[in-house]
Amino acid sequence: MRKLILDLDMGIDDAMALCFALASPEVELVGITCVFGNVPVGVSARNCLDVLHLLGRDDIPVIVGADRPLAGMGPHRAFQAVHGANGIGGVELERARREVGRPDDPARGDAARFIVQAALRYGGDLLVVPTGPLTNIARALELDARAMTALRGTTFMGGALTVPGNVTPAAEANIAADPEAAARVLASGMPLTMVGLDVTHRVAATRGDIAGWRALGTDAGAAFAQMVESYIDAYEAADPWIGGCALHDPLAVAVALDPALAVTYETPLAVDLTGPLRGRTIGDEPAWASGAPGVEVALDVDATAFLDRFRERMARGLSA
Amino acid sequence: MRKLILDLDMGIDDAMALCFALASPEVELVGITCVFGNVPVGVSARNCLDVLHLLGRDDIPVIVGADRPLAGMGPHRAFQAVHGANGIGGVELERARREVGRPDDPARGDAARFIVQAALRYGGDLLVVPTGPLTNIARALELDARAMTALRGTTFMGGALTVPGNVTPAAEANIAADPEAAARVLASGMPLTMVGLDVTHRVAATRGDIAGWRALGTDAGAAFAQMVESYIDAYEAADPWIGGCALHDPLAVAVALDPALAVTYETPLAVDLTGPLRGRTIGDEPAWASGAPGVEVALDVDATAFLDRFRERMARGLSA
Repeated sequence: MRKLILDLDMGIDDAMALCFALASPEVELVGITCVFGNVPVGVSARNCLDVLHLLGRDDIPVIVGADRPLAGMGPHRAFQAVHGANGIGGVELERARREVGRPDDPARGDAARFIVQAALRYGGDLLVVPTGPLTNIARALELDARAMTALRGTTFMGGALTVPGNVTPAAEANIAADPEAAARVLASGMPLTMVGLDVTHRVAATRGDIAGWRALGTDAGAAFAQMVESYIDAYEAADPWIGGCALHDPLAVAVALDPALAVTYETPLAVDLTGPLRGRTIGDEPAWASGAPGVEVALDVDATAFLDRFRERMARGLSA
Repeated sequence: MRKLILDLDMGIDDAMALCFALASPEVELVGITCVFGNVPVGVSARNCLDVLHLLGRDDIPVIVGADRPLAGMGPHRAFQAVHGANGIGGVELERARREVGRPDDPARGDAARFIVQAALRYGGDLLVVPTGPLTNIARALELDARAMTALRGTTFMGGALTVPGNVTPAAEANIAADPEAAARVLASGMPLTMVGLDVTHRVAATRGDIAGWRALGTDAGAAFAQMVESYIDAYEAADPWIGGCALHDPLAVAVALDPALAVTYETPLAVDLTGPLRGRTIGDEPAWASGAPGVEVALDVDATAFLDRFRERMARGLSA
């Protein structure tokens, strides 16, 4: 069976992505690595443990990773308006019994090593889905670029090629949070699929979806309904044309498992590192001539097929 | 037979586009409208007359159009490094006997009217190919939006969706020269195909092409060889990875005549009008929801098929 690592900055759509993955019979989630982004990395790890506990999957390993970008600026902190003070819409989950290392724990940084070890073990059977800054992936490349190039594929949520950014007019949040890491990953030759705002803004969860989860009568259904309700509130205030909350991270998992959901365009990609465009993902023209490997950039998505699958799997995942 | 209007800011690649169009048996060039851009509009008109004369086509109407952008800033003047002091690489052509109105002539501004009259006359048989700022097209829309929406199609050279700009990191020269005009045209609902840097940087003329034109032994071959040689010099200094000079405007004509040459992606497009991204062409996400008409954006091109056709038609056009 295919293996999956989720690399999460555990906010609300990350939680939906996790639930979707756990309800996907065609793949085995072998571990979650955590990264700063929507939330500080310690909060991401705490939320991962607690959401796994909520979903009855305390068996899944959770490994702490990068707490800041490669270039060393302070952690990104402007997530509360979208993801709530605790990253999951203010919902208070029952705490898992497990603990993870604090950011000053010598064990932190093991995320990159965990990813490389899985790449060496599973090779062409391993999918990696980063939904936050690409810092852990860049560090894994530093550890063993050959192993990372030999895994089946990395489908990351991030970037914007044909649409504006969401944290600046040119930059999407995950890339903007660590442009240097993104630049290294995009130029690495790893097999990459980009699930960016070009497509994630085309798929939304609605208040109708939430009502369905509440009607399940489970703790998980109630908790997810509360979480996602606050996420929809944030989207309706900022981007009402989306018609609900964008399903960024669940779409990345879905496309990783079933690439046929997306229409892709292959191009080498670069990242702007300086000036007002810092964090922009853009075609790397000089790489055309050199025959550099491209990234499969999702430009369109079968929204109906994805949303049907999303609803079916979320209902299954929240029914336990 | 299909009819064609070229809307030119007559620099060097515009001259190649004109030669290509005149050598295309499947279309009749019914007129050239002129716009500022690579050169001031008066120079564009002069060059159009003289290149037509060189090619033995003094019969083609030439109509002067906009000498500045809609928003009224001064004409764009930074063309000399690429197109030479006179817009055609410093080549001194025999002057046509015809004259056109000077920029202060009451006859100027007729370009938009000429385009509308052709649209009313030819309707679904008319192709328009603007290779400069979209000012004349925006003015034609002001005169008669219905007629402009009913013509067969407008295939413009300009913009950059998946690659950086060429006058700023985000803006391509033709859009940057009149962003307000471009914004109106892109939002108009006219049937539009964008042939931007995404594809025009993938097709180049080389010194080998030039040698072939010289070997024809004609005045036209010699003049075009001299013109394009200076254009290649400019490209080799600025963008050596292109491997020659980019064939921006000829590619737009070729795609207008044969859309199968390009792989397109349909999306509504907007233009940034303010800030450091002024002049950027970018997906218009709120328009997704409203079902607004999209632009067919060329993202890839069959470079081999285009270059074969370019060489064959240039040789034919320069043999007379």
